[in-house]
Amino acid sequence: LAAKGGANAKPFLEEAAKAVGKPLASLEVAKALDEKLSKLPSNQRSSFLVPRNGGLPETDASLAPPQEECVYLVGNSLGLQPSKTKELVCEELDKWASLGVNGHFTGDRPWMPIDENVLEQSAKVVGAEKSEVAIMNSLTVNLHLLFVSFFRPNGKRNKIMYEAAAFGSDYFAFESQARLHGLDPKEVLLPIKARDQELLRTEDIVSAIEAAGDTLATVCFGTVQYYTGQFFDVPTITNAAHKVGATAMWDCAHAVGNVDLKLHEWEVDGACWCNYKYLNSGPGAIGGFFVHRKHHDKGLPLLAGWWGQKQSTRFNMAHNWDPEADAGAWRLSNPPVLQTVSLLASLEVFSRTTMAELRGKSMLLTTYLESLLRDSFGADLSVITPSLPARGCQLSLKFSQEKACLATFSALEKRGIVVDHRKPNVIRVAPAPLYNTFVDVQRFCAAFREALEEATGEPAAKRAKA
Amino acid sequence: LAAKGGANAKPFLEEAAKAVGKPLASLEVAKALDEKLSKLPSNQRSSFLVPRNGGLPETDASLAPPQEECVYLVGNSLGLQPSKTKELVCEELDKWASLGVNGHFTGDRPWMPIDENVLEQSAKVVGAEKSEVAIMNSLTVNLHLLFVSFFRPNGKRNKIMYEAAAFGSDYFAFESQARLHGLDPKEVLLPIKARDQELLRTEDIVSAIEAAGDTLATVCFGTVQYYTGQFFDVPTITNAAHKVGATAMWDCAHAVGNVDLKLHEWEVDGACWCNYKYLNSGPGAIGGFFVHRKHHDKGLPLLAGWWGQKQSTRFNMAHNWDPEADAGAWRLSNPPVLQTVSLLASLEVFSRTTMAELRGKSMLLTTYLESLLRDSFGADLSVITPSLPARGCQLSLKFSQEKACLATFSALEKRGIVVDHRKPNVIRVAPAPLYNTFVDVQRFCAAFREALEEATGEPAAKRAKA
Ligand SMILES: Cc1ncc(COP(=O)(O)O)c(C=O)c1O
Ligand SMILES: Cc1ncc(COP(=O)(O)O)c(C=O)c1O
Repeated sequence: LAAKGGANAKPFLEEAAKAVGKPLASLEVAKALDEKLSKLPSNQRSSFLVPRNGGLPETDASLAPPQEECVYLVGNSLGLQPSKTKELVCEELDKWASLGVNGHFTGDRPWMPIDENVLEQSAKVVGAEKSEVAIMNSLTVNLHLLFVSFFRPNGKRNKIMYEAAAFGSDYFAFESQARLHGLDPKEVLLPIKARDQELLRTEDIVSAIEAAGDTLATVCFGTVQYYTGQFFDVPTITNAAHKVGATAMWDCAHAVGNVDLKLHEWEVDGACWCNYKYLNSGPGAIGGFFVHRKHHDKGLPLLAGWWGQKQSTRFNMAHNWDPEADAGAWRLSNPPVLQTVSLLASLEVFSRTTMAELRGKSMLLTTYLESLLRDSFGADLSVITPSLPARGCQLSLKFSQEKACLATFSALEKRGIVVDHRKPNVIRVAPAPLYNTFVDVQRFCAAFREALEEATGEPAAKRAKA
Repeated sequence: LAAKGGANAKPFLEEAAKAVGKPLASLEVAKALDEKLSKLPSNQRSSFLVPRNGGLPETDASLAPPQEECVYLVGNSLGLQPSKTKELVCEELDKWASLGVNGHFTGDRPWMPIDENVLEQSAKVVGAEKSEVAIMNSLTVNLHLLFVSFFRPNGKRNKIMYEAAAFGSDYFAFESQARLHGLDPKEVLLPIKARDQELLRTEDIVSAIEAAGDTLATVCFGTVQYYTGQFFDVPTITNAAHKVGATAMWDCAHAVGNVDLKLHEWEVDGACWCNYKYLNSGPGAIGGFFVHRKHHDKGLPLLAGWWGQKQSTRFNMAHNWDPEADAGAWRLSNPPVLQTVSLLASLEVFSRTTMAELRGKSMLLTTYLESLLRDSFGADLSVITPSLPARGCQLSLKFSQEKACLATFSALEKRGIVVDHRKPNVIRVAPAPLYNTFVDVQRFCAAFREALEEATGEPAAKRAKA
């Protein structure tokens, strides 16, 4: 399933439809596909709590039976809750109640080194060595910490290259980091605009990097673009940056737990991510942080705190900075316990499979989604997400009319379909590899046809012909 | 009770003893004192979960009945759990399970603006206006964020003044902030050493500030010193810093929820704190952050993130930095929900009283503690914490012998007394104003006598005479 580029996806789907003897878009085929995949370790739906239609704010009971599970396709925004999260969180609360401060050094999962419990599996999920990962803070904080280490303007080498449509928070980080060095953002920020609509071509990025040459200090991109769903060619871009002497940092918010990252192998200098999307660790979950091994123990500039000090001397309070020899050196504060075990609950699910397996399943799911939607596309509606392998699980559906987009979104909500609306006119649909099913996708597509009809007043059959 | 300087504390205690007709150190007087205070709003012990002896790792059942509550005097390290914490945390987990991503905008306590629930009471606890406070990140991260805004070296004005015995993490922050500006820490760090043992005199600090004059960029002190328990004269030091044109930042880790802070009135520029000590929000709790109103909306340099953007345009993703007009501008990331409601559970308890009332009660409790311990002090053991008003609730007991210190600490542990050992030879004892009682203090003092006898082989009676 994890075949490169997902070229096998379509034949696999068509064969399944043939075996059932029904159209690919039928519920029967979706069920057969789920059945086929049900025993694979990548199928972890039963480890999650799926909201029911009746609990959602906008569902219409006549269109979405209140007791049924909703169709949750918004892991790109907030992942589902693992069934074990509450148990782990309550365990820590109980330890606090019965042990007080002794919980720092006592019990199965002492708090002082509690992040030890989430490093190895976090590293696996992003394709890193354990020593390259720290679990701490939040995404934007970690992005700033990376910049302090890897954006080191020096004379004319002072430019930051980034997507012209970067996530707002990242842009604000770039701008304020430029200012921190007394640089004028107007002069040093180098946004890369897409030649074709929203999509950036790798060759354009590489050319821009080469053109910037020795004026380029750093390159920082979203790994999977939050809006378009484009999965950038991380190794090629990183390599191009290195060739001109620049560093490469990657915001993996929409990539982690979605695509099969190889941060170590790709020679990425630094990366950060959040754990509330495909990593299912809850609203405002703890952040992830990566620094490549080649940069460890080199005295890189960083914002220091006692938690980066070697554990053996950390509590001596001596004023001699003697940091950990790995990514742990970037930690500042004692770890947040509830946040850490929320991540642990999710990583335990990830530990039953691999990102390669998940990516394989995900390519099938999203290919299936795109096939079933094809009929609905036209001049007023298109998918702006590129084809495999340049995407993860998310498809971004762009409407020409903002009104139709909003109306479709509302009609979906009434039907218990949870997707995501991005201003002004995009609906993002993301079958999460870990818990979404073919039936989820099939139900979404059926509802989407209805929603589109309701929103545009145009019968689906007519659209299909257009 | 909140009388200035606590001058009334001793007469109050002595009167109570007289009324009972027993020595001040007797359990009867402790009980009478608790009874006297039991109806005051500052008595919130019943709102907390107190660990039992049997659950602690080192207690000896023959010395500490397993079913009895331990004597918990270590709120300076990790505060007790409010009884309501689990309920609030589970409520959010349940919302996540039933609403998924819709929890961001739905329900009683939507996640998007969830920090709104903890701003007002946090502000009250530190003596600030609501607009001056942000609840985010962790202490050391927040200290760095303050430095980016308030440590702005300029020519010869580049020095950072701090306690020579500052908490390690703060020192590492000072050093790395100096480096961030390309400065040599050796040249710009200005540690203030104590003239008398560990204690810094206000007049020495003020003289040092005046001597540094226009070379001084910033002053940053622990508000209550973590080791000695000294409560610095914040307004006088802040004012002296301002007079020479420097900024003043305060690490309030050991002060918040302990002493009656007036950050706004004292004209403090910036402050940060943790919420896991006297604020009872659990291990690795979310941090607190203060920026004085006079610095709002002035375009101060900061490390920016989308959560600092005005809420009305935050989700537009436009690349025009248009920050909130208050301390909220310093926020970087979307708020961590479980951490925020853990703080909320504790702040609900604080909202039933005031810091002035708590400070009043605290002065009684710690004066009582010191009186009862007086007999034990001698050449080999002394209290290094200054007298009122220059201290909070913590007393630091310093042993001349490291071995005796450790042995006493162990003997206390066996007796179900939870205090804190600081390398090499200090035991910190902190009756938290919100939940500790006179009986706690009395039991500690009785156990301390026994522990000291066990540790030193010297009968208490002999010590008392010495
Ligand atoms: C005075 C003081 N400053 C800073 C810190 C560091 O706190 P954190 O680990 O929350 O950053 C502590 C922690 O105990 C402290 O007591
Ligand atoms: C691509 C990307 N970068 C950065 C962020 C900001 O994340 P945080 O609020 O966790 O700092 C997000 C949040 O959704 C994101 O999607």
